[in-house]
Amino acid sequence: MPAPLAPIGIFDSGIGGLTVVKSVMKALPHEDIVYFGDTARVPYGIKSMDTIKEYAFQIVDFLLKKQVKLILIACNTVAAAAEQQIAEKCAEAGIKVLGVITAGVRAAAGVSPENGTIGVIGTLATVGSGAYETALHAQSAAYKIYSKACPLLVPIAEEGWADSDIALQTLEIYLSTVKSKPLDALILGCTHYPLFRKGISQVLDNPRTAIIDSADAIAEMTVETLKSLKLENKSTEPGEFQCYVSDKPQRFQHLAELFLGRKIHQVEIVNL
Amino acid sequence: MPAPLAPIGIFDSGIGGLTVVKSVMKALPHEDIVYFGDTARVPYGIKSMDTIKEYAFQIVDFLLKKQVKLILIACNTVAAAAEQQIAEKCAEAGIKVLGVITAGVRAAAGVSPENGTIGVIGTLATVGSGAYETALHAQSAAYKIYSKACPLLVPIAEEGWADSDIALQTLEIYLSTVKSKPLDALILGCTHYPLFRKGISQVLDNPRTAIIDSADAIAEMTVETLKSLKLENKSTEPGEFQCYVSDKPQRFQHLAELFLGRKIHQVEIVNL
Repeated sequence: MPAPLAPIGIFDSGIGGLTVVKSVMKALPHEDIVYFGDTARVPYGIKSMDTIKEYAFQIVDFLLKKQVKLILIACNTVAAAAEQQIAEKCAEAGIKVLGVITAGVRAAAGVSPENGTIGVIGTLATVGSGAYETALHAQSAAYKIYSKACPLLVPIAEEGWADSDIALQTLEIYLSTVKSKPLDALILGCTHYPLFRKGISQVLDNPRTAIIDSADAIAEMTVETLKSLKLENKSTEPGEFQCYVSDKPQRFQHLAELFLGRKIHQVEIVNL
Repeated sequence: MPAPLAPIGIFDSGIGGLTVVKSVMKALPHEDIVYFGDTARVPYGIKSMDTIKEYAFQIVDFLLKKQVKLILIACNTVAAAAEQQIAEKCAEAGIKVLGVITAGVRAAAGVSPENGTIGVIGTLATVGSGAYETALHAQSAAYKIYSKACPLLVPIAEEGWADSDIALQTLEIYLSTVKSKPLDALILGCTHYPLFRKGISQVLDNPRTAIIDSADAIAEMTVETLKSLKLENKSTEPGEFQCYVSDKPQRFQHLAELFLGRKIHQVEIVNL
């Protein structure tokens, strides 16, 4: 059975999930966190469903060996492909699983009326999977949903240009259709997108639209889940952060710190 | 032994190599061409040298089975990692191999004095490998070389925005340092970059700098090589084009036609 002093496990196909780590650290500063980023095999979006599941299961095994008390799927592609199966696998070990899509959808549903209008932006793979539509329509079949793939945002974020004029112009183009709709909420359906939050807000220019950051949404679910499972770490010390990746690509350290918003003192490379 | 009526084999890690196909089609309109794009496993740049070689050898085996008379490595990453080994392997079958890096370097050396100044732009992987520097310095140790990685250009090209204001502003940023040097030549060290040729020329704004398109450079080498080996196809019919990929990702057809500059009537998916 999981122990309150055990760490929270968080994983992603790459470094994007560090925005989820950032949100969880902010919401739960005393929790220990183990992160795994599959930087050697990123991007998952272009791989087959079977391969994505296989990789995700390998990562989950790694996290279970680290004796985590809860697992967060920070990767939209994995959440779309295998959240249910991962949850079933982990249930055998008594460990609960939360996914970014479920979290983002729950947060959007919290601010939209049952016949509301919701926008979703994400990678080609996430938008193409229709996972957000499916999850939103499971909440309310009357939602009007407008999705838009924004393939340039990930490379712009990874270039460190999220606050640039180029980013703003790119957002103007990508959001031109959805911003004309009466959106109650816009879900940022990619772990990289919180870096564009300011620009997205500026381009939408509509105080009626709630911008749903899935990183914040899953952090909020984490707080509630640990509380309801009585698994909160009551320590008053700052939590420890262990960062594992399958490869350290060029500029990894710089980018990882950009996404996490703080220094990372140690990163270990692990071959799964 | 290779036959004049046999096709030319061209391969890349993805669709970028279709710019090489385009240049070869233009230079040799009566040659048949077999293309293989490893779209399921792109990008190669983040993989280990051993994996890149393994994948490249699988593709070369596929092309040799198609009885090609010449093989063009359209992928900068493969050319940097394994051109020599691929050439040795193919020599056993009596087949010659040309690589984009060798071709680009030869073209740049053709327009630069021995102590000339040469710029190279490419992906993070290509620029990080130092392969162009090594090949250029093998021509003349006195070259002054300025390299710049331009990671956003591939995704911008794949978004179909190569002619946009965003592309131009991105080029302004990436080329700001190299354009201040007295460049004799600027090598476009990535198969996607020919799509930015107009913008690059506009941003450099220097008629003294020859822009070396490696696709054109390898096409020119192909013409000479077939001639010297007496392997030219003397047919007067338009050449046939066979296109193989390991996966058809979203928007493949549209993008492939953008890179090739013409319609593609049939694409076959092959698992290596």
